[in-house]
Amino acid sequence: MTLYGYYRSSAAYRVRIALNLKGLDVAQLPVNLAGGAQREESFRAINPQGLVPVLETDDGERLTQSLAICEYLDERYPATPALLPEDAAGRARVRGLAQLIASEIHPLNNLRVLRYLVGDLQLDEDAKLGWYRHWVAEGFTAFEAMLDSEQTGRCCHGDSPTLADICLVPQVYNAERFDCDLAAYPRLRAVAEHCRGLAAFEQASPARQPDAR
Amino acid sequence: MTLYGYYRSSAAYRVRIALNLKGLDVAQLPVNLAGGAQREESFRAINPQGLVPVLETDDGERLTQSLAICEYLDERYPATPALLPEDAAGRARVRGLAQLIASEIHPLNNLRVLRYLVGDLQLDEDAKLGWYRHWVAEGFTAFEAMLDSEQTGRCCHGDSPTLADICLVPQVYNAERFDCDLAAYPRLRAVAEHCRGLAAFEQASPARQPDAR
Repeated sequence: MTLYGYYRSSAAYRVRIALNLKGLDVAQLPVNLAGGAQREESFRAINPQGLVPVLETDDGERLTQSLAICEYLDERYPATPALLPEDAAGRARVRGLAQLIASEIHPLNNLRVLRYLVGDLQLDEDAKLGWYRHWVAEGFTAFEAMLDSEQTGRCCHGDSPTLADICLVPQVYNAERFDCDLAAYPRLRAVAEHCRGLAAFEQASPARQPDAR
Repeated sequence: MTLYGYYRSSAAYRVRIALNLKGLDVAQLPVNLAGGAQREESFRAINPQGLVPVLETDDGERLTQSLAICEYLDERYPATPALLPEDAAGRARVRGLAQLIASEIHPLNNLRVLRYLVGDLQLDEDAKLGWYRHWVAEGFTAFEAMLDSEQTGRCCHGDSPTLADICLVPQVYNAERFDCDLAAYPRLRAVAEHCRGLAAFEQASPARQPDAR
C-alpha cells in the first residue's frame, strides 16, 4: 500500500497512527502542501479533492478521506487492536467524538481555509489566529464535556486507542502549533498525553516523517 | 427514539432520510436554530456541542454527529436496505463521498460559521455568499469527478441509496437555497434528482417537517 500524505497534515497523521496501530507497513509519498503540490494536475488525477491523505491499496483502489480510510483498515485488518468498540452505542460514541474533530474543528482550520481568509478575504494575522483559536475552543469545550463520562478511561473510550484518539492527538498537535490555550481541557489533555506516549502514535508524529523540515 | 433536529439543518435532514430508509418511526423534537435554542443551557445539557441532530435511543443514550448516528442505525437495524455496500473498498468509497460533503463542504457553510463571518469578521452579504459558493464549488467539483466511475449507478454507488446519497441530497438542497450554480455537475444532479424522488428522501425534506415555516 502507498500513502500520499504530508508530515504536518493532521488528516494524514490520523491515517499514519491507524496504520501503526495495525502494524501495517506502507510506502509514503509526500505531497508538499506548503508548496501547492496538491493543486497540480498530476495530484488531482490521483485525488480530485486536492487533499491528502490518499491510500492506494494493493488492488489499486485509491481511498480518500481519513476516517473512511481508517474504517477501511479496521475492516480489512480486524486483528487486535480494533479501532472501534464492539457495541453499537460505543461505536457511535467513538465515531461521534472522531467526527466532532473531523467535521467541526479541522475543516475550519486547514490550510486552504486559512489561505482563503488571508488571500481572498484579506484578513490580518490577528483575525486569522482569532478564527483558528475560536473553532478549537468551541470544539474542545464540547469534547471535554463529552469525556466527562464513565466510558472514558486512559483513552477517550476505555483504555485502548480508538478512532477518537486517532483524531484527538493530531488536533492537539495543531492546537499547540497555533498556541491555543488548553488549560480548560484537563481530561482531553490527559488522554492526549497518554496516547502520545504509545509507540504507534509517537512514530506517526510529524517530526518523525521523511518530509519533516 | 427521539430526534432533536431542525427542519433546515442538513445534518438532521441526513438522519431523517436514514430513519425513513430503515422504516423507523421516531418522535421529533425541533430545536429552533434560527432563534438560538441550540446555545441555551438546557440544550447544551443534551449535547455539549450545541448542534443538531441528537438521537436519543430507547436505552437513553444520546448520540451526536449525523454520520455516526446513520452508522449506528445501520448496525442496529441491518435489515434491507443497508446504507453501506458489503465490500470494504465499496464501503470506503461511499464513506469517502459522504465525508467529502460532511467534512469539506458543510462545516464551512453552516449557520454558526456564517454568523461568525458576518458578526465577528464584519463581512458583507456579498463576501458571505462568495464564501458559501466557493466551498460548494470546490467540493462539488471533486464529488462530480468521483462520480465518473463504473461504480456510480442511479445512486452514488450502484442503484440503491447509501450514506453518500444521504449526504448529497441535503447538500444540494442547501446549494439551491443559496443560488449556487450547479450546471457543471450533471452526474451529481442526476443522482440527487433520482434520490429526491424516493419516498424516504421526499418525506425527510425540510418542507415536510413539523417545524417548517
